[in-house]
Amino acid sequence: MAMFSKVLIANRGEIALRILRACKELGIQTVAVHSQADANAMHVRLADESVCIGPNAAKDSYLNIPSILAACEITGAEAVHPGYGFLSENARFARILEEHKISFIGPSAHHIEIMGDKIQAKKTALELGIPCVPGSAGAVTSEADAKRTAAEIGYPVLIKAAAGGGGRGMKVAKTEADLSTAFSTARTEAKAAFGDDAVYMEKYLEKPRHIEVQVIGDGQGNAVHLGTRDCSLQRRHQKVWEEALAPTVPMEEQNRIGEICSAAMRKMKYSGAGTVEFLYENGEFYFIEMNTRLQVEHPVSERITNFDIVYEQIRVAAGEKLSLRQEEVEFFGHAIEVRINAEDPQTFAPSPGRITYYHPAGGVGVRVDAAVYQGYNIPPYYDSLIGKLIVHGRNRPECLQRLNRALDEFIVDGVKTTLPLFRRLIKEPDIQAGNYDIHWLEKYLEANKE
Amino acid sequence: MAMFSKVLIANRGEIALRILRACKELGIQTVAVHSQADANAMHVRLADESVCIGPNAAKDSYLNIPSILAACEITGAEAVHPGYGFLSENARFARILEEHKISFIGPSAHHIEIMGDKIQAKKTALELGIPCVPGSAGAVTSEADAKRTAAEIGYPVLIKAAAGGGGRGMKVAKTEADLSTAFSTARTEAKAAFGDDAVYMEKYLEKPRHIEVQVIGDGQGNAVHLGTRDCSLQRRHQKVWEEALAPTVPMEEQNRIGEICSAAMRKMKYSGAGTVEFLYENGEFYFIEMNTRLQVEHPVSERITNFDIVYEQIRVAAGEKLSLRQEEVEFFGHAIEVRINAEDPQTFAPSPGRITYYHPAGGVGVRVDAAVYQGYNIPPYYDSLIGKLIVHGRNRPECLQRLNRALDEFIVDGVKTTLPLFRRLIKEPDIQAGNYDIHWLEKYLEANKE
Repeated sequence: MAMFSKVLIANRGEIALRILRACKELGIQTVAVHSQADANAMHVRLADESVCIGPNAAKDSYLNIPSILAACEITGAEAVHPGYGFLSENARFARILEEHKISFIGPSAHHIEIMGDKIQAKKTALELGIPCVPGSAGAVTSEADAKRTAAEIGYPVLIKAAAGGGGRGMKVAKTEADLSTAFSTARTEAKAAFGDDAVYMEKYLEKPRHIEVQVIGDGQGNAVHLGTRDCSLQRRHQKVWEEALAPTVPMEEQNRIGEICSAAMRKMKYSGAGTVEFLYENGEFYFIEMNTRLQVEHPVSERITNFDIVYEQIRVAAGEKLSLRQEEVEFFGHAIEVRINAEDPQTFAPSPGRITYYHPAGGVGVRVDAAVYQGYNIPPYYDSLIGKLIVHGRNRPECLQRLNRALDEFIVDGVKTTLPLFRRLIKEPDIQAGNYDIHWLEKYLEANKE
Repeated sequence: MAMFSKVLIANRGEIALRILRACKELGIQTVAVHSQADANAMHVRLADESVCIGPNAAKDSYLNIPSILAACEITGAEAVHPGYGFLSENARFARILEEHKISFIGPSAHHIEIMGDKIQAKKTALELGIPCVPGSAGAVTSEADAKRTAAEIGYPVLIKAAAGGGGRGMKVAKTEADLSTAFSTARTEAKAAFGDDAVYMEKYLEKPRHIEVQVIGDGQGNAVHLGTRDCSLQRRHQKVWEEALAPTVPMEEQNRIGEICSAAMRKMKYSGAGTVEFLYENGEFYFIEMNTRLQVEHPVSERITNFDIVYEQIRVAAGEKLSLRQEEVEFFGHAIEVRINAEDPQTFAPSPGRITYYHPAGGVGVRVDAAVYQGYNIPPYYDSLIGKLIVHGRNRPECLQRLNRALDEFIVDGVKTTLPLFRRLIKEPDIQAGNYDIHWLEKYLEANKE
C-alpha cells in the first residue's frame, strides 16, 4: 500500500493541529472537519481543506459518524486520524471506515473492542503475560466466597461493581472485620446504580503511582515500547502533569515492564500507537487498562526518544513496517508536560472566551502544542484543554528548572488558565522530589483551598 | 569559587533573553542593561533588575564600558555575560572587569586578544596544529617574492592587505599571468585603504563551504567539541541559515577536525565557549578565524547534543570544571536554524516598526528564540535580527520537512521579515540536497531578483 495522499483529521483543538503538522511534514494533504463553533479554529485555518460537519454539540459534529464519512467522500480522504477522545476508541467507527475502504489511523476494530471491555481487557492482559491486580476470577457471589478470595489476595481489598465505573459500587475492606459490610454495601450500590449486583474483588493499592508504557506496533508482528510515563498527578482521574521516563521506577524495572508490553503487542499483532496503563506500588506493576490511541501526553515520550509517534501511526496505518527496532530506541534526559486548561486554577470551573493576549514560552528545551492564538474565542462546548507545555532537560532537576522558567514566560490573557496552578505546584517539595502518588494532587488541592 | 548569585547581561535582543533564561534556570538573579530605545524590550521586562545605560546609539549604551561598570556596581552583579557582538570580543572590557573583580563570562582577555588579531590567530592556530590556508609566512614585499610563493602554494592565489578587512586590498590571481597586476593593484588599494601597502598571500579557494567547530573549555585544561556546523549560506558575510552537523562532511572528517580543535583548546587552556571557523574544500579544512564568544547559531549544536552551552559558559566562568567529557558528547539527528531579520526579504533594507501580530511556530521539534512580542516596537538603531527558528529532525530530510511546516505557521505582521526568503529557499533543489557553498546564496539572490 502506498502512503496516503490525503488524511482527514476527525478531531479538534491541539491534537488536530498536532496531526495536521505531522501530515504536512510527511507531504500529506489535510482535511479538517469542524463544528460550527470551530470555524475559526487554528487547525481549520491551517488545513488544506475543511468541512463543517455539524452544530456545536460534539454528538452532532465530532461524534457524528455519517457527517464525517460524508466529509471523507466529498474530499477524497483516504484515511482518518481520530486523535484522542471523540471517536478514537469507537470500534464501530473503525469498522464502518473499513467497510468504506477508508483507513482508520489506529488499531483494528477488534483490538479496540477487546481493550474497551474491562473484563475482556484484563483477561487478554493476563493471557499476554501483563501483570494484573490479583483478584477474583469472576463475580464474587457470597460473603464466604468474598472472605476466601480476600484471604488469598491479602488485605486491603477492593470490591467493585462488575458493570460499574466512576467509583459507584466500589468499597474498600481494610481488614476481615470490614469485609461483611463492604461486600453488602457494594452489592446494594451496584444494584442501584447499574441494575446488576454482580461484584468482583481486587487487591486494593493504597498509594500507587500511575505509570504507563507507550507502545507502537505495525500489525505485522513488530512492536516496540518507547519507555514509561508517570501520570500520577491527577484531578478527578484527569491527568494534569506527566513525566517521562517515570522518575521513581528503577531502570531495570522500566525495561522489564516495557519489554512485557512490547512482547504482548507483538503477540497480539497490535497496529498503531497504544498505552498500557498500570498502577505501581511497592515495586510491582498492576495493569489498569490499555488505551488504543494516541494520548494527550505522548510528547514527553517523543522528546526523550526523538521519535515522532504520529508519523509512525500514519506510516503503519498505510501498511508500512515499523521504522525502528527496540535496540534503536534510546532515552535521553527527562521531559515533563503540563496541561494548560482554560479553567479557574482554584475552582476548575471552565473559562471559555476570547484570548486577548497570547505569548507562549520559547527558548531551549521548550515545546508548545497549543491550538490557540491571540483573538481566538475558546468555545464553551468542549474539553477545556487549550495547550500543552512540554519541557526537556538533561535530567529531572534541569527539566524542572526549565519548566519553572517557561511557566513564568507563558502569557494567556482574557481567560483563566491552569498556568498559575503549575507555578505553585513546581515549588512544592514533593513535586521537586518526585514524591507523589495518584492521590497527592487531590489532597494538595483540598489542603490549599483559598 | 561559588556559583554567581547575580549576573549582568551586557546585550540586547534575542541573545539577552537567551542568557536571561539560562540564568533563571540556574537560579541566578539577572540584571538587564538597556538603551533608552530598549526600555520595553522583552529581556528588560523579564529581568529581576534593569538599568538604563545610555541613549539609543550602541556606542553610548551597549558599548559604553563605564556605564556598564556602573550598572554592575549599583546592582552588585558578580559577573557579566557579553552575548555576541558589542563588547563580547573586547579584551579591554574583559580586563577592566577583571580589575574590578567582576567575572567576564567568556575567555581570558589574553585569548580574546590573540584570536582578535588575524596574523596572531593564524600563527597560534598553526602552532596548535589547526590546519590553515597555505600562504606566505609574512608580508610579501616584491613581485619576485610573490611569484615564488604562488608557485609553492599553487594557483589560484589570493593577495590580501595585511592591515585589511572587508574585501579591500584583496585580489585573486588565477594563473601566473595575472599575478603581476593583481599584486600591484592589491598593494595600491591596501595603501589607499589602510595607509599600509603590506600584503600577504594565501591559496584561493573557489567554492568552499563554511564549516565551524563549537568548542568549550574550562581554563583548567579540559575542553570538548560539540561537533560541526555548516554556515555556508551567507549574504554579505552574514550567515542566514545554519545546520548541525555539517551535512556534507564525512563523519570521520568531522571527528578528526573536532578532535584537533578540542586538543588545541586543551593546550591553550581556553576557557568558555568558542568557535573555530574553517573554509572546507576538496576534503580539506582551512582555518579562517576563531570567535571567542557565544555564536548566534549555537542552538543547532545544543539541539543535537542536548547540551546547554550557556549553562556551561556560566559554570566555567564561576570556576567549575567542564561538566562533560568528550566521550559523553553524542550527536542525535539534524538541526537547522534560520535567522529571522526585520528586513525586506528582497532588498534586505531594515524594516523596524511595530509588530502588530505575532504568532511563533510550535509543535514537535521546534525551538523559537525570539525577543519580540505582539505590540513590540523594533527600534531602528541595532542589528535587524529579531528571532531564530531552530528545527530538529531525526535526519536532514525530516528536519527540512519540519522547517518547511514551521515556516508556514510563523506569523510576524507589521514589519517585513526574512521569513518569505526561507519559504523560497527551502524549495530549492540545491538546498534540499545540501549542495551549496559560501557563494551560493549571493548568486541565488542575484539570479532571482524581482
